[in-house]
Amino acid sequence: MAENNIMEKIAALCKRRGFIFQSSEIYGGLNGFWDYGQLGAELKRNLRDTWWRAMTREREDVEGLDAAIIMHPNIWKASGHTETFADPMVDCKTCKGRFRADQLAQIPCPQKSSKPVADCDGEKTGARPFNLMFQTYTGPIQSEENIAYLRPETAQAIFVQFKNVLESSRQKLPFGICQIGKAFRNEINPRNYIFRSREFEQMELEFFIKPDEVIEKIHGSVAKWHEGADLSTPQPNWGWEMWHRYWVDQRVKYYESIGLGRDALDFYWQKKEELAHYAKATVDILFKFPFGTEELEGIAARGNYDLTQHSKFVGKPQDYFDEDTKTRYIPHVIEPSAGLDRLALAVITNAYHEETITDAKGKTETRVIMRFHPRIAPFKAGVFPLLKNKPELVAKAREVHRLLKPHMNCFYDEAGSIGRRYARQDEAGTPFCVTVDFETLEGVKDGADSGKKDTVTLRHRDTSAQERVSISDLLGKLLPAIS
Amino acid sequence: MAENNIMEKIAALCKRRGFIFQSSEIYGGLNGFWDYGQLGAELKRNLRDTWWRAMTREREDVEGLDAAIIMHPNIWKASGHTETFADPMVDCKTCKGRFRADQLAQIPCPQKSSKPVADCDGEKTGARPFNLMFQTYTGPIQSEENIAYLRPETAQAIFVQFKNVLESSRQKLPFGICQIGKAFRNEINPRNYIFRSREFEQMELEFFIKPDEVIEKIHGSVAKWHEGADLSTPQPNWGWEMWHRYWVDQRVKYYESIGLGRDALDFYWQKKEELAHYAKATVDILFKFPFGTEELEGIAARGNYDLTQHSKFVGKPQDYFDEDTKTRYIPHVIEPSAGLDRLALAVITNAYHEETITDAKGKTETRVIMRFHPRIAPFKAGVFPLLKNKPELVAKAREVHRLLKPHMNCFYDEAGSIGRRYARQDEAGTPFCVTVDFETLEGVKDGADSGKKDTVTLRHRDTSAQERVSISDLLGKLLPAIS
Repeated sequence: MAENNIMEKIAALCKRRGFIFQSSEIYGGLNGFWDYGQLGAELKRNLRDTWWRAMTREREDVEGLDAAIIMHPNIWKASGHTETFADPMVDCKTCKGRFRADQLAQIPCPQKSSKPVADCDGEKTGARPFNLMFQTYTGPIQSEENIAYLRPETAQAIFVQFKNVLESSRQKLPFGICQIGKAFRNEINPRNYIFRSREFEQMELEFFIKPDEVIEKIHGSVAKWHEGADLSTPQPNWGWEMWHRYWVDQRVKYYESIGLGRDALDFYWQKKEELAHYAKATVDILFKFPFGTEELEGIAARGNYDLTQHSKFVGKPQDYFDEDTKTRYIPHVIEPSAGLDRLALAVITNAYHEETITDAKGKTETRVIMRFHPRIAPFKAGVFPLLKNKPELVAKAREVHRLLKPHMNCFYDEAGSIGRRYARQDEAGTPFCVTVDFETLEGVKDGADSGKKDTVTLRHRDTSAQERVSISDLLGKLLPAIS
Repeated sequence: MAENNIMEKIAALCKRRGFIFQSSEIYGGLNGFWDYGQLGAELKRNLRDTWWRAMTREREDVEGLDAAIIMHPNIWKASGHTETFADPMVDCKTCKGRFRADQLAQIPCPQKSSKPVADCDGEKTGARPFNLMFQTYTGPIQSEENIAYLRPETAQAIFVQFKNVLESSRQKLPFGICQIGKAFRNEINPRNYIFRSREFEQMELEFFIKPDEVIEKIHGSVAKWHEGADLSTPQPNWGWEMWHRYWVDQRVKYYESIGLGRDALDFYWQKKEELAHYAKATVDILFKFPFGTEELEGIAARGNYDLTQHSKFVGKPQDYFDEDTKTRYIPHVIEPSAGLDRLALAVITNAYHEETITDAKGKTETRVIMRFHPRIAPFKAGVFPLLKNKPELVAKAREVHRLLKPHMNCFYDEAGSIGRRYARQDEAGTPFCVTVDFETLEGVKDGADSGKKDTVTLRHRDTSAQERVSISDLLGKLLPAIS
């Protein structure tokens, strides 16, 4: 199957079932912006919740933060974004178009579309940097001093609140601060569906650690990483390298926990010459998307660059008092930085399966099954009465629905044949379906007592297998699978 | 206690304990923007979760949405925001200041601060409208056609995706679409802490209903509201008035469920002459803040105004096919629209209690207890070993912590006296504390067998009452209180 073809099918399913819609679609859309519909909103909530749980609620060494999108503009001077977060652009004085300098040979000239911009007659400027931050103004006057930006990343909010969190939480190094939130980049060329959009959501952790010199002073030596090193439990003598490997390991375990196994992932360790000048190591966790293997998350050992920059710009050291060494210093940091929208796309493409079924009359039909991990599936269970015109079946199915609902997101459905209802839940990615039938009511099947009163059919999405389960055992069966 | 004094104390507590920080504080702050620290981020998450649960997960007639902040600019033309979402402003040509026209008598002149702007010598323009939407540009060229706005409300995203959600969800009227997300208003005068800020989070539902004429056609008459009407279960013959009252009732029940009882709330029914021209009724649910009784949520019966406007602007009817009457029409809507940040402030001020304690030496001390409803408290339980230098106590406390952790956000603490640890959790609003002591280990107290092996002290925040509870009964005691 051609990759475009798969992406088109996935986008069609996402629209048809309410995972993802084009933003402002009835107005012709807005390039680089997407809305999540009823199933997509639940999927994203579940992804956020699993991340938040793994990163802070299940840990004692990470605090959460929820900071504003618009921050003081000098923050972006300190971080380097005002100066360098830019793409080189070329203006054409003839057609008034603006084009990415590195894409002139590919982009067709808007006036003579047979030629690429590089070869058309238009008079062009040299390449000039175009900053990718969205700019606005705060307050009533649009003056230089009131310029503000939509944050291009959530990380800087963590750095500028480092001291406040440190002091109010009583944490000691090593500890982290994590945040989930929107970020904005005015991409010239948004592409690959929701993979590279202009408005997106990040899930970032800044994990602050003691510099290796301090570890050495306290412990005499620094534990360095080696193949097979035990990363399961952080140790006091870990230096940045062990912490970096630890977080790679933690993050891979997270992806596994939501159904993205190691075979779906790939890794790219940046080469020395590719690293930012302040970075000690960066690894990208990649996912095999239909359009190519692309970054899901970057995990960087950033040294003490950001806190040092902010210290300079505010004129006050953003530092830490170490009780062991009685010294003050600026902590170093490990940064696992993930994109929520691309993660949503990864789990959607990973879940997407087609099955071709031939019915009794020899007619074939292709159906879609979304094999989400039960933990992140929008609905955990569908609950159906076998027939909608039998009040006893409906009443019992309602009872089962009421039983499950407080514990999981469930969908009640009585419309159409049971087969169609299963198929609808398969498309939505619901891992379990529960059907109430006559055996449930009477324990009678084909006229004989089956001894199965108060049992239901539990149907499993991925295998289509059905089993008979007592209603009183349902929660005990389903809860471990979804939590 | 003067109201300013209370607000100052609350803000001080919020900073000290990590509920709320000023945005960009180390850079001197940014007026009208706030960050939520580790406790505030958890509190907000809990508020979002309770709202989302009540509005969509526990209902079958409401779908969720998670739309982009930046939408097509014509949406704001259709909604009226481009034209009329403005404050009248006066410019002073002398000092170059810009002031709200209705506040000239209160604002001191920046050059002669002894005089208000209204009375200074500066040469002023007439009042001109200043739009409150934050403006930016999408794409590389800052031209008229690329202007975009940060949404001033989340509601319009729901209206423009009405058709997509309707078609993909198979819902029929009446049904709703709800959304939680950031919105932005470039307030001239942000004030009252996080109550009126420039960046804030909304929780909005648009509940689409059949017009009264259609109800009348189908049912012969329309059920109208009267004092004492039964609002518990929606009926097919309800008109807009019953639906409006129903949603007021639902929302009040929601506030009660998170600890804001009817005595903390107030209601303001807009008078006929105050209503927007398209609105049939609007009620504001108010909360008694220390700085005044102010709006927490507005619940409006908006007729079919918004969908009609979008129909006009896109040239396609945003309508609904009614199977009962075989007609198409534009649904009417009831809109409960709440502010998450002001709700956070309401539950924080509602929770804030001071207690003055006199110790054995006659020394008095004032302590703060944050009496959050357990459902929304950032931490549900604190778990402590009585002493940190007894490994058996620590090990057992760790065991209890591991037992509770998968079910609720808990805080483990072994630093300082037990009294101080209780006090810290009182300030954080943690409803339960669990202490492991020697009786837990041995069942022995004062040398005699107390028969209380494997029991712990369960301490209740609001009463300081302590009871002895078996470890195996802990979850059974705590879970019903927090869920």
